[in-house]
Amino acid sequence: MCQLLGMNCNVPTDIVFSFTGFAHRGGRTDTHRDGWGIAFFEGAGVRHFVDHEAAIHSPIAELIKRYPIKSTNVIAHIRKATQGQVALENCHPFVRELWGRYWVFAHNGDLKEFAPALTGPFRPVGNTDSELAFCYLLQELRARFPDGAPPLPALRAAVAELAQRIARHGTFNMMLSDGTALFAHCSTKLCYIVRQHPFAHAHLADEDLSVDFSTVTTPRDRVAIIVTEPLTKNEQWTDFAPGELKVFVDGAPLPAGA
Amino acid sequence: MCQLLGMNCNVPTDIVFSFTGFAHRGGRTDTHRDGWGIAFFEGAGVRHFVDHEAAIHSPIAELIKRYPIKSTNVIAHIRKATQGQVALENCHPFVRELWGRYWVFAHNGDLKEFAPALTGPFRPVGNTDSELAFCYLLQELRARFPDGAPPLPALRAAVAELAQRIARHGTFNMMLSDGTALFAHCSTKLCYIVRQHPFAHAHLADEDLSVDFSTVTTPRDRVAIIVTEPLTKNEQWTDFAPGELKVFVDGAPLPAGA
Repeated sequence: MCQLLGMNCNVPTDIVFSFTGFAHRGGRTDTHRDGWGIAFFEGAGVRHFVDHEAAIHSPIAELIKRYPIKSTNVIAHIRKATQGQVALENCHPFVRELWGRYWVFAHNGDLKEFAPALTGPFRPVGNTDSELAFCYLLQELRARFPDGAPPLPALRAAVAELAQRIARHGTFNMMLSDGTALFAHCSTKLCYIVRQHPFAHAHLADEDLSVDFSTVTTPRDRVAIIVTEPLTKNEQWTDFAPGELKVFVDGAPLPAGA
Repeated sequence: MCQLLGMNCNVPTDIVFSFTGFAHRGGRTDTHRDGWGIAFFEGAGVRHFVDHEAAIHSPIAELIKRYPIKSTNVIAHIRKATQGQVALENCHPFVRELWGRYWVFAHNGDLKEFAPALTGPFRPVGNTDSELAFCYLLQELRARFPDGAPPLPALRAAVAELAQRIARHGTFNMMLSDGTALFAHCSTKLCYIVRQHPFAHAHLADEDLSVDFSTVTTPRDRVAIIVTEPLTKNEQWTDFAPGELKVFVDGAPLPAGA
């Protein structure tokens, strides 16, 4: 199974600590050797890094661990190929533009008998079920809101309904962001934590590395980390319910009815 | 004025030597300090790096100079902001998907009174005339060839006509690639060289660095480098004519009538 990592914050924050633990799952503490990728929003712009080398051997992953890129929305993915060969065009996250915004998407799971009609402008470049699901999702959003991005509650309802529809074909744990909100849908396995004042000490599960967040944050900072499996051993992670979509804005999940 | 660099080859080749000289123009030997970017095709996939730091100070540019990414089509850009503020979403090259392929685009120049109607799916994320021209170009290509990519001669004729139309609004030196061919249009300033057997020694104009290509190539290799200003002092670069579009495939320009 692939692994997903997302971060959503109220102020631009670097993901060095969480990414360091996560990257170890790409070939060291886990068997995800079929490429990896990460996308950082900076304002409306995106920095997008993909590599078909295992994250543990990738010079680009090494750069990201050393170069603290600050972002309010990040999505990362480590791949264990189930559909589509190991190739750069099959590495998540994928990026497309809709309504004059970039959209970033990553998926963990496997979709069966999933062959939606692609009648809109979005076509897969590679041959994964994941990129196909992303193209379909954007096509349907564009069809429902042809004049531009709707208000967040309407967008949330549409993403939730489309995610449910896609999830009928298999496992559809996914993360999606346009740089202002991070949508996370859980089929089988996803959890999150919100780190905020008073910040505590965290110790990575995958590497012997600790950080005292109180020394690198201000009392206003709030950071949500969403991940396939908990990254730390000494913090309390909250599991998603199967079928649940959460929307993270400014470092926290929106209430269910919002 | 911004600077453009393109590479088109018949076998995947690294661009370390040419990029090293080119990156020096981003803040050292020239005044292009408003960001830079580079995109490498690897098969159908793209590695896309952008940074709003000057190329000379960018840790990502440093990585690229050290990590020999091999590619058959590369487009790089160093920005001197004329329209649009210094922001990540305004850094070239831009990437979009059309017909199930990624397209990479970079532009040097300034367009005046250029406000085409955007009725298709491509919308600018940033606020440069360049990204607007790219969206317009893809919109018009999609409208002419709604069923998918046409054969290269038809595509070439369409790109040439659209580039001329855009160039009526100002300077439109640009590079465009889908990973199989590299289109380069010259309004005012562009030159190229084809390096092939027997390979010779080259000496960078912007840094005291030489390379003997015969030691790092095979007799079959052929590499076209296209750039705003010659990168080397001891090689013969060929200027584009104003208004000329050249299409590079397998490391050489196609004949004018092809």
